[in-house]
Amino acid sequence: MKLPHLQSLLFELKKIPSVGPRSAERMVQYFLKTKNSDLQQLSKLLTELKHKIKTCSQCFVFTQEEDLCSFCKDNSRKSEILCVVEQAFDVFRMESCGSFKGSYHVLHGVLSPLNNIHPENLTLQQLQKRVVEKEIKELILAFDSDLEGDTTALYIKEIFKNSNVKISRPALGIPLGSDLSFVDDKTLKQAIENRNYL
Amino acid sequence: MKLPHLQSLLFELKKIPSVGPRSAERMVQYFLKTKNSDLQQLSKLLTELKHKIKTCSQCFVFTQEEDLCSFCKDNSRKSEILCVVEQAFDVFRMESCGSFKGSYHVLHGVLSPLNNIHPENLTLQQLQKRVVEKEIKELILAFDSDLEGDTTALYIKEIFKNSNVKISRPALGIPLGSDLSFVDDKTLKQAIENRNYL
Repeated sequence: MKLPHLQSLLFELKKIPSVGPRSAERMVQYFLKTKNSDLQQLSKLLTELKHKIKTCSQCFVFTQEEDLCSFCKDNSRKSEILCVVEQAFDVFRMESCGSFKGSYHVLHGVLSPLNNIHPENLTLQQLQKRVVEKEIKELILAFDSDLEGDTTALYIKEIFKNSNVKISRPALGIPLGSDLSFVDDKTLKQAIENRNYL
Repeated sequence: MKLPHLQSLLFELKKIPSVGPRSAERMVQYFLKTKNSDLQQLSKLLTELKHKIKTCSQCFVFTQEEDLCSFCKDNSRKSEILCVVEQAFDVFRMESCGSFKGSYHVLHGVLSPLNNIHPENLTLQQLQKRVVEKEIKELILAFDSDLEGDTTALYIKEIFKNSNVKISRPALGIPLGSDLSFVDDKTLKQAIENRNYL
């Protein structure tokens, strides 16, 4: 088949993580069927993406054409408590639960030597500098509870071991509304260890 | 959060079938991290897609800036046997197995009243016309073996019931190299009914 345009498009789409050959084909089928205005809109948004979307110079969450994000500008938020997250989108998830009123810090990844992600690839130095300069009192490490998340949490604990910064992680336990038979053994063990007295 | 550019991009990405909120976020994260040249290349390919990629006027497979596809132009292929497929990408899959040397016809979908796909949305009229004009002798209906595929096959059989066109479907049976214990009951039943004597 001599369809260089289609083959190049499939090639570019397959570079996206979790997009395999079959998903790429399904995406092309959608692009060919959809309205041309939608396709042009998507293409325009992609062209301008890196120009429009920046990261906040203090907490590294996304901003649109601004140096400081709305969270860092907001004086009503407690700036001495930082919630440290892996990705910028995690900030919006934390915000939607509405229970955290402090500031954020986005690492843009977690430590994963196998995937070539080392401390210098994350915003850890900036975190260290910010904790000292802004007199931060507590860090809440809201990472995924997996090997990489746990490693990164330990690494951060190690960085601040000689300072007075309190370091915590969100509680592990049974998710609300969940069926006990679907909870794995390790989660259940944690939930019992961290039980709440009524 | 006031990030209209990011929100529009997420909105456009979520229109792609099988892309949910989480996949759209992961795609945006990749776009923001990847080289700008890759992003511009993807955007350019999308902009030009509908202009560059057409469908063959005879068999409806994809072509690049040509009226007839390479299969229809190829005189060495038997043009009296048509392999009827659901999507244009199925043609490339059939070609990669290398055992079919006839011509193709792409329906661009299968009958699915629940999803509002009726006979007039497919290239069935063109198939009917082509069978008469080109004196087609056999149709191989290579659809998925599911409800929609079976319905479409029955519908096509009904269209040609008063003609001499032979209609067949690829054999159902146990896939090569498969473990018998993983084959479902209905497939096993078909495989035993269609058994091959040694």
